[in-house]
Amino acid sequence: MAAAAALSERGRGRTAPNPNVGCLIVREGRVAGRGWTQPGGRPHAEAMALEQAGDAAGGATVYVTLEPCAHESPRGPACADLLAAVKPARVVAALIDPDPRTAGRGFARLRGAGVAVTEGVSTDLARRAMAGFLTRRALGRPHVTLKLATSLDGKIALPSGESKWITGPESRAHAHLERARADAILVGRGTFKADAPRLDVRLAGLEERSPARFVLAAKNPSVPSEREWNWLDSPHAITSLPADHLLIEGGAGAASAFLAAGLVDRLLLYRAPILIGEGRACIGDIGLSRLADAHGRWVLADSRMLGTDRLEIYERKR
Amino acid sequence: MAAAAALSERGRGRTAPNPNVGCLIVREGRVAGRGWTQPGGRPHAEAMALEQAGDAAGGATVYVTLEPCAHESPRGPACADLLAAVKPARVVAALIDPDPRTAGRGFARLRGAGVAVTEGVSTDLARRAMAGFLTRRALGRPHVTLKLATSLDGKIALPSGESKWITGPESRAHAHLERARADAILVGRGTFKADAPRLDVRLAGLEERSPARFVLAAKNPSVPSEREWNWLDSPHAITSLPADHLLIEGGAGAASAFLAAGLVDRLLLYRAPILIGEGRACIGDIGLSRLADAHGRWVLADSRMLGTDRLEIYERKR
Repeated sequence: MAAAAALSERGRGRTAPNPNVGCLIVREGRVAGRGWTQPGGRPHAEAMALEQAGDAAGGATVYVTLEPCAHESPRGPACADLLAAVKPARVVAALIDPDPRTAGRGFARLRGAGVAVTEGVSTDLARRAMAGFLTRRALGRPHVTLKLATSLDGKIALPSGESKWITGPESRAHAHLERARADAILVGRGTFKADAPRLDVRLAGLEERSPARFVLAAKNPSVPSEREWNWLDSPHAITSLPADHLLIEGGAGAASAFLAAGLVDRLLLYRAPILIGEGRACIGDIGLSRLADAHGRWVLADSRMLGTDRLEIYERKR
Repeated sequence: MAAAAALSERGRGRTAPNPNVGCLIVREGRVAGRGWTQPGGRPHAEAMALEQAGDAAGGATVYVTLEPCAHESPRGPACADLLAAVKPARVVAALIDPDPRTAGRGFARLRGAGVAVTEGVSTDLARRAMAGFLTRRALGRPHVTLKLATSLDGKIALPSGESKWITGPESRAHAHLERARADAILVGRGTFKADAPRLDVRLAGLEERSPARFVLAAKNPSVPSEREWNWLDSPHAITSLPADHLLIEGGAGAASAFLAAGLVDRLLLYRAPILIGEGRACIGDIGLSRLADAHGRWVLADSRMLGTDRLEIYERKR
């Protein structure tokens, strides 16, 4: 399932409103097929993996991050039907499909065709890989990641505004990878005016994955730019965003507005081993009036070294 | 040597101006004696371990964090002579004694008596365990640890001043253990006036290890208190402190003053998984005018979880 979740990441940020599913077909200990939802949503992961596996799919074990769909569409047959036709021995799935057109019917159709089904395997991995789709389904908005790149004392610039560079090249490359995993990216008005940042993905082979760009501003900030910008007039307007994974890149104003609105699901905290002291704080007023209210909201999900910097990933408890 | 370094920690903060040495005697795979410098500096670690080992010391291997002393004193014989007399097969030592009265003469005397000597083993462990003695010898001042307990965004209080609690009980217990490892502790004038903190060690069995208390203030802050307070008029006055391990506990003013003076050797960073936003920063002006000057000063030496908090220990590169 870890391999299936890794495959699902390949479609992340490019399949909305479809889920970015991953699928692995294993026959007699060998990988017979690998699939992931293709850009735009079709083919589905299972269809791609079955196509690769061919005859080897019969009697095989199919690992899939989400319940195979049970509803036909003009764009292709239901994956549960495709699987039932080739008769794998077993389907191992992480999550049930929250789409009411499937919601258990995919598993039922497989079982009805004599295929063994195991549900609920490695659900955390699958939830992280398909966070955008699941958040859209559950909360009617994109999954929101906030990136902060700070000194050990939580500063993002000197009083003079000097901010290049706090974190090192490894952190900055990792942040570009995170851009490639999003389908929309947002900065605050201050960052937009000061930097007119490109916010594209500058990693070899991933340039085309640069997400749509948004600025948090009351009205259209008509600044000349070589690539299109859109604007959002409030954090709550993300419900209408044509994207399932939103990355907020800066500055403190935008970060604070989304935190105050309770609209951050994941925190990427890149920290350089430096102290700045007097300088610009990474976030401002987030509407906290009592310390007790600050506790219990964030859980450390992962951490690693990036050069001499440290990345911590926190997830919001819901 | 790791065991000898752990033994040396038992004397930490209680042996100044003597080094807190650790010594382990192993004979045929069994521990025959364990010693550490006793409070006030005598007996020395080697004398204590030899006393325990008795006849087993002959032919044994002696692990010691610092070169055995070669100079006699009115308070006892030289450890190199004690060891030479019982003839262990080998002495394994971490560091050479920077005291000019020994400085290699201890090793020479052992070799002259037919004892094999191996130097330079696990020097990092020994340096950390005896940081106070070594800093005093090298820089003429105590080894200084700065403790910061913050939110993820580097804040130590809400704008209202509310600061209890940011970190959890595991972090606070660990901070008490760090107090027991120091022989002096310091707070700034603001923290002193606001809290009149006890700054004692509230861990069962370690109460008597509460360090001497200092406040950073221009003149004697005559505040009634059940235990004596002393004062320092500037960070540079630590050269005259009757202590080798100084712990700075707060607040932002004292922390900034010591950082600006370049007088912090070790940073204990306790971080709770909360965001505060607008609030009080953990440090203020530390005299930084260019980002480039902030880099290359600190190295992550250790990190661990303490409940849901994370402790990071940084060491100053010299």
